[in-house]
Amino acid sequence: MTKKNYYSANPVESNTITVKPGIRQTARHQPVYLGIDIGGTNTKLGWVDNTGQCMQYDSFPTRADRPFSEFFKDLKTRLSKSLETYTGTYELVGIGIGAPIANRWTGTMEAASNFSWGKVPVVAMIRENFDVPVVIDNDANAAAMGEKCFGSARTMKNFIMVTLGTGLGSGFVVNGSLLYGAHGFAGELGHIIVDWNGRQCGCGRKGCLETYVSASGIKRTVFELFAEKMERSSLRSIDFETLQAEQITVAAQRGDPIALEAFERTGKILGQKLADAVAFTDPEAIILGGGLSRSGKFLLTPAQHYFEQNLLNVYKGNVHLILSSLSTKDFAVLGAGALIMQEVQMRVT
Amino acid sequence: MTKKNYYSANPVESNTITVKPGIRQTARHQPVYLGIDIGGTNTKLGWVDNTGQCMQYDSFPTRADRPFSEFFKDLKTRLSKSLETYTGTYELVGIGIGAPIANRWTGTMEAASNFSWGKVPVVAMIRENFDVPVVIDNDANAAAMGEKCFGSARTMKNFIMVTLGTGLGSGFVVNGSLLYGAHGFAGELGHIIVDWNGRQCGCGRKGCLETYVSASGIKRTVFELFAEKMERSSLRSIDFETLQAEQITVAAQRGDPIALEAFERTGKILGQKLADAVAFTDPEAIILGGGLSRSGKFLLTPAQHYFEQNLLNVYKGNVHLILSSLSTKDFAVLGAGALIMQEVQMRVT
Repeated sequence: MTKKNYYSANPVESNTITVKPGIRQTARHQPVYLGIDIGGTNTKLGWVDNTGQCMQYDSFPTRADRPFSEFFKDLKTRLSKSLETYTGTYELVGIGIGAPIANRWTGTMEAASNFSWGKVPVVAMIRENFDVPVVIDNDANAAAMGEKCFGSARTMKNFIMVTLGTGLGSGFVVNGSLLYGAHGFAGELGHIIVDWNGRQCGCGRKGCLETYVSASGIKRTVFELFAEKMERSSLRSIDFETLQAEQITVAAQRGDPIALEAFERTGKILGQKLADAVAFTDPEAIILGGGLSRSGKFLLTPAQHYFEQNLLNVYKGNVHLILSSLSTKDFAVLGAGALIMQEVQMRVT
Repeated sequence: MTKKNYYSANPVESNTITVKPGIRQTARHQPVYLGIDIGGTNTKLGWVDNTGQCMQYDSFPTRADRPFSEFFKDLKTRLSKSLETYTGTYELVGIGIGAPIANRWTGTMEAASNFSWGKVPVVAMIRENFDVPVVIDNDANAAAMGEKCFGSARTMKNFIMVTLGTGLGSGFVVNGSLLYGAHGFAGELGHIIVDWNGRQCGCGRKGCLETYVSASGIKRTVFELFAEKMERSSLRSIDFETLQAEQITVAAQRGDPIALEAFERTGKILGQKLADAVAFTDPEAIILGGGLSRSGKFLLTPAQHYFEQNLLNVYKGNVHLILSSLSTKDFAVLGAGALIMQEVQMRVT
């Protein structure tokens, strides 16, 4: 696709969405990127400009147990609504999508756990409705691009983005570019092994990092501590299916000993394994984002302590473990927008 | 430096070595690269051509406990001798050097364990005697370039080279280039942690991979097994200072139970940790080289078994763990020659 196509004044007609000429006129208008984050729980979307402002933010339940066609109908309705209420004079340059186990090279979402969709050609389906460049990538790579374009990594050429959600995702940037490897799967920090005889993982193996360090991992640690310790805890009255990571943070804020110990253990494993990760790609920084990172100091303090303690001497004080500086709500949408912004800029230059 | 300098017909005079015009004449002559590997025990050198042939191979004891100036005098004498006996009509294009903890960006050897030299400006000192491009890099990166130019990785853009010598070195190639990271130290697989409470490492920490998987690591395992097991072994009559990894291989060939168990344990840890490494950079293959890799099947069979067993499903059968195909004797010199060959080709194009 040539540069001309990005700025086409003639939107493609589709059977359900007509892209309004108002937002796709001439190069006089400010360029915007549509960012979509397809999550296991919610799908988020918004318009992202070159400065990292997110406009027209919207969110709806993904309900990943229903067929993809139903989800896609919902997504198109939301996009239509977003376009209709859009009053600025902007120009849609491209669409970026972050999703679990997405393959950038094929434009597909692969069969992801928690999703009943199997392999889905997301990019092709979006392209049927929008005549602009569309790119999909896994959500951790999207988050990494968000940090590189708009966040803490703006001046960095080598860093690791770690997203702590239901699982643990990671995106590696080396020499200024995302690392894909030989098969497109590089940067799967969530599946390095903490304990070969450890917790069962959804990948079929045992002891993967994400079974300890993630929203679901810290929940498992809390229940392990219920068995191990005698201390009283407000969390003991919440069943396994109901307990959310946010409740562990709230309990920690109140001084709950089980919650505090769960964060200590989680942060210790995270810090130790991130020190190992530094020995692989030698980054300037490791940036933590995603739901569990919002627990702030409870996770960060032990993680930083054990990270620094376990670094090779040459790295001590030289590699920073920090929290994402991007707004919590817009985080994933900014990442998805940054994916396509980088892609378009690369194609043009 | 421009292309012109590489083929300068006017060798630089130095106080000890005169580069003979015979080997540095015009572009009619076949280009050769001088490869030097500075090892803790021996220093090896030889002339490497574009096809990976090594000529004029030479080797001498490094004796790294003496001052660098004395070593350098020896090196210059060897180079003089090599030049004098050189009868071909070749053209010296550049000099590549592999060494422990070498920094490509500064052209120096940093303070390396087993060396009493401190930080040494090796490239600058070589350049005083040869008016050709000179590059130094750590020996594992050199070995990786050897595999890429002349060995098993000729068609690969993403692979990991692991050198099993006194320590464990590694060089990562991603997207066709060596990975250096933000500080020039990327790819230190020898210092990822096997056991946080494990064996003391020269880096000041505990449980690093190279304390288990290397020539010195397997020796430690043999002595651990002496304490743990009751089986008779020919190795029990050899003291710790005297035992060499080659003797463990010879014992294994004779069916020695301690030697066989030492290889099994070493291969298991290697296989498990290399499976983790795949989750970082997603390579096509991992190539094993260096002294301990010459034990062949004794190390490779358990390593391959545990590697395959511990890979993420998506990689099973897709990432190969293989031995270097390069000649044992020339291995390090070919790598050093490949370093400068790649560098020169990159500068010219």
